[in-house]
Amino acid sequence: MNFTRLLSTINYKKIPPSIFRSYSTMSIEKKLQSVFSKVDELKPVFIERLANAVAIPSVSGDESLRKEVFKMSEFLVKELESLGAYDIQVKPLGKQPPPVTDENLELPPIVLARVGKDETKKTIMIYGHYDVQPALKDDGWDTYPFKLVEVNDKLYGRGSTDDKGPVIAWLNVLQAHKELSLELPVNIIFCFEGMEESGSLGLEELVGREADKYFKGVDTCCISDNYWLGTKKPVLTYGLRGCNYYQIIVSGPGADLHSGIFGGVIHEPMTDLIRVMSQLVDVKGKILIPGIDEMVAPVTETEEKLYDDIEFDVNELNAASGSNTAIYQSKNDILMHRWRYPSLSLHGIEGAFSGGGAKTVIPAKVIGKFSIRTVPDIDSKKMDQYVFDYVNAKFKELGTPNSYKVELIHDGAYWKSDPFNDSFTAAKKATKVVWGVEPDLTREGGSIPITLTFEQQLKTNVLLLPLGKGDDGAHSINEKIDVKNYIEGAKTMAAYLHYYGEI
Amino acid sequence: MNFTRLLSTINYKKIPPSIFRSYSTMSIEKKLQSVFSKVDELKPVFIERLANAVAIPSVSGDESLRKEVFKMSEFLVKELESLGAYDIQVKPLGKQPPPVTDENLELPPIVLARVGKDETKKTIMIYGHYDVQPALKDDGWDTYPFKLVEVNDKLYGRGSTDDKGPVIAWLNVLQAHKELSLELPVNIIFCFEGMEESGSLGLEELVGREADKYFKGVDTCCISDNYWLGTKKPVLTYGLRGCNYYQIIVSGPGADLHSGIFGGVIHEPMTDLIRVMSQLVDVKGKILIPGIDEMVAPVTETEEKLYDDIEFDVNELNAASGSNTAIYQSKNDILMHRWRYPSLSLHGIEGAFSGGGAKTVIPAKVIGKFSIRTVPDIDSKKMDQYVFDYVNAKFKELGTPNSYKVELIHDGAYWKSDPFNDSFTAAKKATKVVWGVEPDLTREGGSIPITLTFEQQLKTNVLLLPLGKGDDGAHSINEKIDVKNYIEGAKTMAAYLHYYGEI
Repeated sequence: MNFTRLLSTINYKKIPPSIFRSYSTMSIEKKLQSVFSKVDELKPVFIERLANAVAIPSVSGDESLRKEVFKMSEFLVKELESLGAYDIQVKPLGKQPPPVTDENLELPPIVLARVGKDETKKTIMIYGHYDVQPALKDDGWDTYPFKLVEVNDKLYGRGSTDDKGPVIAWLNVLQAHKELSLELPVNIIFCFEGMEESGSLGLEELVGREADKYFKGVDTCCISDNYWLGTKKPVLTYGLRGCNYYQIIVSGPGADLHSGIFGGVIHEPMTDLIRVMSQLVDVKGKILIPGIDEMVAPVTETEEKLYDDIEFDVNELNAASGSNTAIYQSKNDILMHRWRYPSLSLHGIEGAFSGGGAKTVIPAKVIGKFSIRTVPDIDSKKMDQYVFDYVNAKFKELGTPNSYKVELIHDGAYWKSDPFNDSFTAAKKATKVVWGVEPDLTREGGSIPITLTFEQQLKTNVLLLPLGKGDDGAHSINEKIDVKNYIEGAKTMAAYLHYYGEI
Repeated sequence: MNFTRLLSTINYKKIPPSIFRSYSTMSIEKKLQSVFSKVDELKPVFIERLANAVAIPSVSGDESLRKEVFKMSEFLVKELESLGAYDIQVKPLGKQPPPVTDENLELPPIVLARVGKDETKKTIMIYGHYDVQPALKDDGWDTYPFKLVEVNDKLYGRGSTDDKGPVIAWLNVLQAHKELSLELPVNIIFCFEGMEESGSLGLEELVGREADKYFKGVDTCCISDNYWLGTKKPVLTYGLRGCNYYQIIVSGPGADLHSGIFGGVIHEPMTDLIRVMSQLVDVKGKILIPGIDEMVAPVTETEEKLYDDIEFDVNELNAASGSNTAIYQSKNDILMHRWRYPSLSLHGIEGAFSGGGAKTVIPAKVIGKFSIRTVPDIDSKKMDQYVFDYVNAKFKELGTPNSYKVELIHDGAYWKSDPFNDSFTAAKKATKVVWGVEPDLTREGGSIPITLTFEQQLKTNVLLLPLGKGDDGAHSINEKIDVKNYIEGAKTMAAYLHYYGEI
């Protein structure tokens, strides 16, 4: 909690930006040595910059704090300007669509900025978000969430790891180069959004609109918005599962009925729904809908090898779930079922009694919710059809007079990149030089929809380069980033730029 | 909607109460003829009395209207006083227990009153309630709910049939006798409560306290707080099902988890719960827990005959449920499964996702709710054990590491009376003389817990004598009582008193 160490002795804005020394004859390793020393030297400044960012409660999900989200975008613009970015565009996204309380509520803008415009260099698009999850001291935080507090070499505060830490780390990379008058080895296009925690409203459309304009010429994309698998080894992430979300609607009676009067004499929608929901997945997670498992890409030898070095065991899963409820005990089984096999979860039922205590209702209309996490090579449309056919067949078997319908309500595709492409290769070298180890190549069980948007719209590949650890507590109370991850992370980012620029 | 017919020309308070003519030599039929004529004559006064009662919005479930519930109790006291009741006691029940907003909220009192104290006569305890369900015009009412409005010989208004209509009808019986100076054939003890729609808080304790005091010497009880089976034939009700309410608690993870990260690698509580819930009852309503059906009393010939004359068919069930979802098509099957066989309903799940849209949560703790309607001769404790054993066995079969528990959270006993006892015999005669038909002898699928309280605490039998029709819409919008039911109902009540007094 000691911020006395925060220095303001280095007035980095005073360094003349015009004169960049030529480092052209220097090896990458030499250049990086200078950068790493500068990063270490600037550590107090970097922490102060993050503290200034965390101090702005830019919660996109809280309408009353929308002005703070805008304030955060202005903060970024100022920082970018002072660090030599140009062509800074603050893209308005219009009014937030319903449901909103204030129908004139403006969406936070997307901040675009360039650094470098050398046609002989590669161009990297770097994405991050400057909005955060809600946080209240009363939620159980040990400290005030919008004041960055350092305890035992960890920086606590909302947004410290998700995603202000990584966003500010990129700015720190700029500053280190600027102070060294060291030219960046690539052109950078920044794309910072302020609505990620609230559905990224407007982002996909903007990327589409700007694909051939602002984003023209992008060679690769880099996103730092996920986490290491555990707490010890850095990772690079090359895959995400998709998610198809379904609902089963069963209805019969004209209105909710009293179970005293109608129990035993009518076909109850809940009975039908529960019967069918119980036949979707078994207790060991096996999907009972035929055809889905058959579409899953077989595990190749190359892929299997990727798991060898990964540090993970069942204890980490149990610690994360807060229970001893693991289906599998071996590392490979757990990680493969999280990353590269589909899963089906039953989420709940809309329309049934969901309160505490006892209510003797026969719900007239109930909507069962479940989703399937998708992986290569599942054909999403085919899977939908398998689901519909199976559910309809199960209802037919029941012979119920209630009406039923199964429908897809959300469809997000999986993403898998080639972890041996140029961008991953550069990031591996960067990790090795900073952390002294090869990064684990991981996938994630969840989705980051924007990954796919960039890949498809900009027709390029995407690298997920996480900075924070698996125990950082993004979205939770006491969110933190380790000082080491924040500082070494900036070094890794810098090294990545240099190695990628060299290829 | 025409209330111009409401008369105030008959100033019944002016009739000297001291002189009661001796009707001792007159036959019951003659006496009843006089009563019926008087009831017809007083119809406008009776409707006005009900209008005055309905105008008081005595909603017990709305704390802000508690003073209106008290006002309604005062209204009853005044009416009872003016109609010759004595020993009127307004019993306070103390503060309403939590959950309440205002922790000093007083429970509405129970109004006790006597009419007649002739030791040679039988004593009937008459129960009714003066509180009502909530009602707002905006709920969809065609008229303002707290103004009694007559349209096509129906009286619309909250409480018109549940339960102000029947309560006021008893007062009307007193008035008819008073104006005729006709002595009542029985002693009456009234017990009117103001909390029936909100759990009858305090009533059971009061009945216990007063069993050997105010209620000493009660020969039988009569409750008019249910309805005809249909709309054409009057009924007397001799049975109610009980209700045991259970919950199954399944928990595993320490907190709700993300299905992207944990889907497919942990045992999900929802999967386990849905599996077990699906094995409690089949889609045709058959309870799958062994031992329960075996305890049900066999249908006797006498009982089966009671169904012969009952007017009811599957169309009435379909109309009531607003659907064609009947499990049985024959009258006897439907009514027996509603009244004299147990049923199991799945009500919902607490802790699971229950909102609209899509949420990819793996709920950490889910609580499945179901209830079983009980009938003679199910032993409630034995049934609980069968339920616990079955559910636990089903969980064992799953082999899940999640923890589970099944528990009873509410237990209400069934009630069945002898429909050939003195009280039912008198009520049958009364119905016949007023309506010209034998009443159907019905049971109900639901519970009226106070029935059992009176039977057990006062060690006497109870008659359920409904006034309103099956389509009156108690608890619903546009609640009504037919003028005919209200007026002929008062006659039936009067005739019941006379026939019972004669036995």
